[in-house]
Amino acid sequence: MTSTLSELLAVETLDLSLRDELQHIIDTKTKPPGSLGRLEALARQLGLIQRTTRPSVERPAMIVFAGDHGIANEGVSPYPQAVTAQMVANFLAGGAAINAFSGVAGLELEIVDAGIATPLPPLPSSALSALVSVPVAHGTRNFANESAMTRDEAIAALAAGAARVRHHAALGTNVIGFGEMGIANTSSAACLMSRLCNVPIDECVGRGTGLDNAGLAKKRNVLAAALARHANVREPIDVLATFGGFEIAMMAGAFLEAARQRMAILVDGFIATSALLVADSLAPHVREYCVFAHASNEAGHRRMLDHFGARELLALDLRLGEGTGAALAVPLLRAAVAFLNEMASFESAGVDERSEHPH
Amino acid sequence: MTSTLSELLAVETLDLSLRDELQHIIDTKTKPPGSLGRLEALARQLGLIQRTTRPSVERPAMIVFAGDHGIANEGVSPYPQAVTAQMVANFLAGGAAINAFSGVAGLELEIVDAGIATPLPPLPSSALSALVSVPVAHGTRNFANESAMTRDEAIAALAAGAARVRHHAALGTNVIGFGEMGIANTSSAACLMSRLCNVPIDECVGRGTGLDNAGLAKKRNVLAAALARHANVREPIDVLATFGGFEIAMMAGAFLEAARQRMAILVDGFIATSALLVADSLAPHVREYCVFAHASNEAGHRRMLDHFGARELLALDLRLGEGTGAALAVPLLRAAVAFLNEMASFESAGVDERSEHPH
Repeated sequence: MTSTLSELLAVETLDLSLRDELQHIIDTKTKPPGSLGRLEALARQLGLIQRTTRPSVERPAMIVFAGDHGIANEGVSPYPQAVTAQMVANFLAGGAAINAFSGVAGLELEIVDAGIATPLPPLPSSALSALVSVPVAHGTRNFANESAMTRDEAIAALAAGAARVRHHAALGTNVIGFGEMGIANTSSAACLMSRLCNVPIDECVGRGTGLDNAGLAKKRNVLAAALARHANVREPIDVLATFGGFEIAMMAGAFLEAARQRMAILVDGFIATSALLVADSLAPHVREYCVFAHASNEAGHRRMLDHFGARELLALDLRLGEGTGAALAVPLLRAAVAFLNEMASFESAGVDERSEHPH
Repeated sequence: MTSTLSELLAVETLDLSLRDELQHIIDTKTKPPGSLGRLEALARQLGLIQRTTRPSVERPAMIVFAGDHGIANEGVSPYPQAVTAQMVANFLAGGAAINAFSGVAGLELEIVDAGIATPLPPLPSSALSALVSVPVAHGTRNFANESAMTRDEAIAALAAGAARVRHHAALGTNVIGFGEMGIANTSSAACLMSRLCNVPIDECVGRGTGLDNAGLAKKRNVLAAALARHANVREPIDVLATFGGFEIAMMAGAFLEAARQRMAILVDGFIATSALLVADSLAPHVREYCVFAHASNEAGHRRMLDHFGARELLALDLRLGEGTGAALAVPLLRAAVAFLNEMASFESAGVDERSEHPH
């Protein structure tokens, strides 16, 4: 079942009607008012998203979208393009960082081939069964020369990402995070950011997985030229088609659908936030369902967070992608709902409240 | 079995012999070098503490020490002293924040009466069985007038805290955190900090659980006068005896013993770090076993962290105590050991490493 673009964009604003009731419950817990800091705001947000004073974390899921980028031909990454397929095989075999972190966080992990360019290495069939293979094409075209994808491909990718989220919604998931793998995708994300946020490309470009100074300078030049070539592209869907990747487009669709399903959405690092920029430019209420999990060390991510007026939960200097920053935040959501649901109130515990006039 | 003070202070420096081997393992995992940020340093530290390239988190435990403070008579807290006993009852009944967070983190939770002043409210015997009752006395004396405890009481409290850690070591615990409850204990911690770090009291005093401006000014005056009265007390054990609380002294002994047992130690907020200041002034290698879990919103904690050259893992604006900040960091330790133990290497996964000269 595919969704039309207009269906996808029908994201409702967060219903705030439980806000005061949630705040009262939080304020009467056996603790000084406000003393659980960021977790209080998180508990409130989860209650509003789920429209209950007893929110929960149910079957949390992580979808990692993988796709290749024609721009990799310009030498903007120190890794060869085949690493995308190799890392997908590593995800399927359970050997990557996101596998380790999903295990710790109790996350259901799904790997999606959104458009990988090279064949996957041989894998046991048991590992292959964990792959959802819905590629739009075998990698995007090189946006240094032409649009990365067509508008129809972009819309198809949005719909495919949304479909993966509906799959998990049907299984009971109410918290979801998205990760990505795609050699050269920081180049794609930087161009999306530059165009959608109207920020000079130099402020959007970073070292990605580890460029040296010469590589960084080259990446800046390549991307500045590409942005100049496509200077007239301004409409969000067209910006996505021109500079995006299939994994980024699917993730943007996943953001839209997750908000429609009233899930709490864990936003990972630089690439994931670029996909959120796309989703947000199409349906601005999406951000109300988002928890900004981690501030990446990739240059530009801080500026993206500022764009959303967002403060991250974690700042652990990660710059890996795969959804690792999002996965690490799951225990904080569990802690937020646990204190809201399990803590006693001053009254129920028989604990004296503070005096206004200490003796 | 009690330990003598000299036994307690025999903390060995961290054995660094596995450092290069651990770093090599971390660097050959399927990720760009350094891209797991702070978790890489954490994995290395856990390996060094446990003297293995395959560290683990085994039976993690949280001990909450509770004690009362004579200085509460000076009106330095907005809460009445009876709240210490009431909150201990709340811990035992499972209704406090540390109960909720310990459940999420999979922590064994133990509550220790280190010296509570008022009787516990009536509790079912099932709840009371979770209490370890080893009070040194029913609260400290008021250090505005006299030393909070005798030197012998301070040493007895150190030994009692150490004994609780040995109990958990015998059960297999290799990661431990400490929390506290004690009305007015930010006053005690501020004086310990001022004297042990040689910092003016105004830089050590904060609002605690929520003083207003007038209350804050009064607290500063009370503590400045107390420090002046005990101006000649400089030797760490005597500083502890003069300004400490029984819960802080037991926690200091617990820090010493945990380092002796080569446990990874989760350092909570302002009060816990003041106990670490005491332990560190007695045996400076203790800090090598410490993971600084959370930067408290209490003024002065940042300065304490700077004293240790420490950077916290989390900064969530908590200012509650109870060990809540320490508990929230446990999943990050689990993530660190999971990536170290479970991730594939580039070679084992058949993933290409980066090219030095991108084409």
